[in-house]
Amino acid sequence: MSANLSSATARPTGAPPAPLVGGLDLGGTKVQAVVVDNAHTVLGAARQPTPTRGGPPDVAAVMADTMRAAAQAAGVPPADLRGVGIGSPGAVDAAAGTVSGAGNLPGWTGTYALGPALAATLGVPVHLGNDVQVATRAEFELGAGRPFTSLLGVFCGTGVGGGLILDGRPWLGRGAAGEIGHIVVRLGGARCPCGRRGCLEAYAGRGAMETRARHLVQRGRSTNLFQIMERRGRTRLASGVFAQALARKDVLATRLVDRAVRALGAGIASAVNLLDLEAVVIGGGLGLRLGEPFVEAVRKATVPHLFVPDRPPAMLLAELGDLGGAIGAGLLVETTQFR
Amino acid sequence: MSANLSSATARPTGAPPAPLVGGLDLGGTKVQAVVVDNAHTVLGAARQPTPTRGGPPDVAAVMADTMRAAAQAAGVPPADLRGVGIGSPGAVDAAAGTVSGAGNLPGWTGTYALGPALAATLGVPVHLGNDVQVATRAEFELGAGRPFTSLLGVFCGTGVGGGLILDGRPWLGRGAAGEIGHIVVRLGGARCPCGRRGCLEAYAGRGAMETRARHLVQRGRSTNLFQIMERRGRTRLASGVFAQALARKDVLATRLVDRAVRALGAGIASAVNLLDLEAVVIGGGLGLRLGEPFVEAVRKATVPHLFVPDRPPAMLLAELGDLGGAIGAGLLVETTQFR
Repeated sequence: MSANLSSATARPTGAPPAPLVGGLDLGGTKVQAVVVDNAHTVLGAARQPTPTRGGPPDVAAVMADTMRAAAQAAGVPPADLRGVGIGSPGAVDAAAGTVSGAGNLPGWTGTYALGPALAATLGVPVHLGNDVQVATRAEFELGAGRPFTSLLGVFCGTGVGGGLILDGRPWLGRGAAGEIGHIVVRLGGARCPCGRRGCLEAYAGRGAMETRARHLVQRGRSTNLFQIMERRGRTRLASGVFAQALARKDVLATRLVDRAVRALGAGIASAVNLLDLEAVVIGGGLGLRLGEPFVEAVRKATVPHLFVPDRPPAMLLAELGDLGGAIGAGLLVETTQFR
Repeated sequence: MSANLSSATARPTGAPPAPLVGGLDLGGTKVQAVVVDNAHTVLGAARQPTPTRGGPPDVAAVMADTMRAAAQAAGVPPADLRGVGIGSPGAVDAAAGTVSGAGNLPGWTGTYALGPALAATLGVPVHLGNDVQVATRAEFELGAGRPFTSLLGVFCGTGVGGGLILDGRPWLGRGAAGEIGHIVVRLGGARCPCGRRGCLEAYAGRGAMETRARHLVQRGRSTNLFQIMERRGRTRLASGVFAQALARKDVLATRLVDRAVRALGAGIASAVNLLDLEAVVIGGGLGLRLGEPFVEAVRKATVPHLFVPDRPPAMLLAELGDLGGAIGAGLLVETTQFR
């Protein structure tokens, strides 16, 4: 495959190597790769489903493959990239290049040296970061967050992830900050995929919403959600399935999204009351698929809980869309390297 | 009165003026004043009840009086103080020296120039800050928070206030950060004194706890809380009343405190999940009166909600006790001045 790539990307003799960078967003359902230039313009992109079986080396192989495909689309041999950044779930040790306990990835309960593995496979320096943190940084530096110095990124996907920028810099705490999805919005409330009760994610995570939809259908509630899912050839209630059901005024889908919105309003207001942030940027599959009307609904649900309601934070839809995580990962290509 | 003071504080001829500083903590029920030296040792202290009638000038007069009494106790004329710091509730504009909308103080719905008023009365520079923020700073610089660079101060008094230190500096956001009392711990839950529903303060504020106790007694529940209150000559369920009832295993008092502890566990865990802080310092009247067993109970109630439960933050009782707010106010004597 690399032979093919090389032949497709011959540079004019004597031209300096293009200062291109790769970004990989490792998600629970898909691997997204981009190649960007130094103005952060996407020159090539590729996507593959995340393996559901095997272990970390299988996931790493798919990541390398997806990165090669994005490089091919951009017309550059992968080895000519200045570096590749990876946004990963789980506990990321950027210095060691390892990822531990990524529960949504197959067989990834332990620690795996993802950075060194991909650096060896691709032959370029590799840089590791937390998936939501790099997506937040991307929105802050290049997207909806540009006008602000403090913001919260809220990414509603399978789960609900968050990232913080305070005073113009990422706030990581002791390394694990940003878990807006595990703010408690209802003591003793719904069971969260994390095992606890009452977390925001238990109401506003796509995974928890699907679990509840299946439960309610088993108990006799009617909905078009699963017909839409099947018609789209899916086995999961993907964000697009919720969007379509909502557009068709499906009662159960509407109730589940309203419930998510109320929980997001309480959770985001809690964060704003604590930190008095300038802005909140909402992204993730569910946020992006439901779009501006969803952001507007969350904005309305937040205000009643704000301690200073006459000065709400700006609440904005993520601008970089589905590529934000991969573009943000590309921004990592300035830190620790694994050759 | 100042004539008396002067006679009591004659300095040896030729000695430089002592580098003493005043601190005033303006609370809803009491005004606490201290005089400290440059090692922050308390040389004199005085306390008076906050007026329940009149308006801001009446409150300011009591504050000046309390400051004079503390100065007398320290053996220094008030005018010899290097400055006086004030920790105030409400919205504080430190640059203008004004306090607005201090709902727990009589007739203080508008804006009052407290800084300039006290500077004129006392004849010393006056510095203004938010009451909870200065108390947090005091615990960070001089108290239980000294070993840490990031912490949350939680002050359980009539209400529940909070202050944040991030990366060694107070985090104020756009000026109003730290409102841990208005984190939503139960969507649609109990009515909060702020008018909203489900805030932490609705469960863990002494005021809300008293309202609930009165409500439950009206509905026939039995408790010794109000007998203890009367025996202590109080008209309110002060923190000490709860402490005594708890010591006597009063069932209603125990249930109310347990309910407060559960809410504090959820609210503090939410803040820690969002910010991954090193430490939480618990103070305020209720925190100090109930002491270490209360902090231990809150610690236990926090862990089940922590996203990274194997690395909980240190959870500590405030070290500076009832004088913390006033000592923290004294730390302000380095900023804007009002002569």
